[in-house]
Amino acid sequence: MGLPGAVVLVSGGMDSCVAAAIVRLSCETAFLHLNYGQRTEARELRAFKEIADHYRVERRLTASLEHLARIGGSSLTDPSQPIERANLASTGIPATYVPFRNANMLSVAVSWAEVLGASAVVIGAVEEDSSGYPDCRRRFYDAFNAVIEEGTRPGSGIRVLTPVIGMAKSEIVRKGLELGAPLHLTWSCYRNQDVACGECDSCALRLRAFEQAGVLDPLPYRVRPHYT
Amino acid sequence: MGLPGAVVLVSGGMDSCVAAAIVRLSCETAFLHLNYGQRTEARELRAFKEIADHYRVERRLTASLEHLARIGGSSLTDPSQPIERANLASTGIPATYVPFRNANMLSVAVSWAEVLGASAVVIGAVEEDSSGYPDCRRRFYDAFNAVIEEGTRPGSGIRVLTPVIGMAKSEIVRKGLELGAPLHLTWSCYRNQDVACGECDSCALRLRAFEQAGVLDPLPYRVRPHYT
Repeated sequence: MGLPGAVVLVSGGMDSCVAAAIVRLSCETAFLHLNYGQRTEARELRAFKEIADHYRVERRLTASLEHLARIGGSSLTDPSQPIERANLASTGIPATYVPFRNANMLSVAVSWAEVLGASAVVIGAVEEDSSGYPDCRRRFYDAFNAVIEEGTRPGSGIRVLTPVIGMAKSEIVRKGLELGAPLHLTWSCYRNQDVACGECDSCALRLRAFEQAGVLDPLPYRVRPHYT
Repeated sequence: MGLPGAVVLVSGGMDSCVAAAIVRLSCETAFLHLNYGQRTEARELRAFKEIADHYRVERRLTASLEHLARIGGSSLTDPSQPIERANLASTGIPATYVPFRNANMLSVAVSWAEVLGASAVVIGAVEEDSSGYPDCRRRFYDAFNAVIEEGTRPGSGIRVLTPVIGMAKSEIVRKGLELGAPLHLTWSCYRNQDVACGECDSCALRLRAFEQAGVLDPLPYRVRPHYT
């Protein structure tokens, strides 16, 4: 096995799975999974392991950012807040936003990349067809690249890659199928860990994407509404 | 007690203690301490608690970034690597550099600041009169401010403040004494947790600073060389 060219943040969800599939076309990868105390972490960790096994990835790291749950401010990490039903027409920042989460995650990824000698960190962020989190926008990643350039050893050359950021979710499904990505191993539901709820923002975006792509999502759902 | 205006990263060392003393002149503070698996963490945590008690800070958070030790790449976190003797004339990046550490720390601080509604995060980084870490330079913090602007809620207004970044270490000592900062409670040695070694980079910078300021460092040292 060669040196990994890229550290991929693999949450267990669909977007990062397809991002990994794309990057693996051109370089060796190391997989990083971060637990931030969200309610479905056990299921997401299982998905991470199964995806990493599927791709026979040897270099894996899991780490805990559980203090993000203690810091709070998000319905994903605070069991006393309900996970809202999806409202795909909303333009505000939803209650599931975890403050500055992706900067915390990228920072760990860059630290690991610097030690491994990898030249990229990869994150499956999606900008337009997403929940509207500020730390999923291209401008955030452009700014982060400047931080990496200033804050790592001169010549580290590490860049953030966002291979699916401009894709519609349905394109991500199609790309995943095209590349044989193990979408059946991924997990997206914000609420449940056994049967997906079908009603949270993450289920709604996923169900709509599969429907638009004209294929059936292989995951079990409690309900499968039609989202437009 | 009012809302905290600033989240201060308090390592237990002298620079962040004086940074805290400066910021407390103008606003309420919350203190954040991060363990990154360094060999002197137990002593630094004690210093953090004693400094926070001294200032009667109610809002405190400690969290673990121990994965930075698992990631490695630094003599501070890898017990199999020796802590080198000080070489204050060196211009390279020393083996004590922890890859991208300060980005990891700032990210936690910004997450907490966003939830608290604080408008600043404070770090006691020192640029010129320091060990030459890339993530202690002004340019790194300028770049990080752009990331905060893009990656937090619109209007969060959070900025990184670096109140001692341009000071010589001896000025930091003088400023600390002027403000009554509890320098006797701080800990700087990279090697030891009971009696400071007097020989590592951190001890050397500190001893030289006190000598230049014309005062005796109140900490116990195994040896007290004269550094120039």
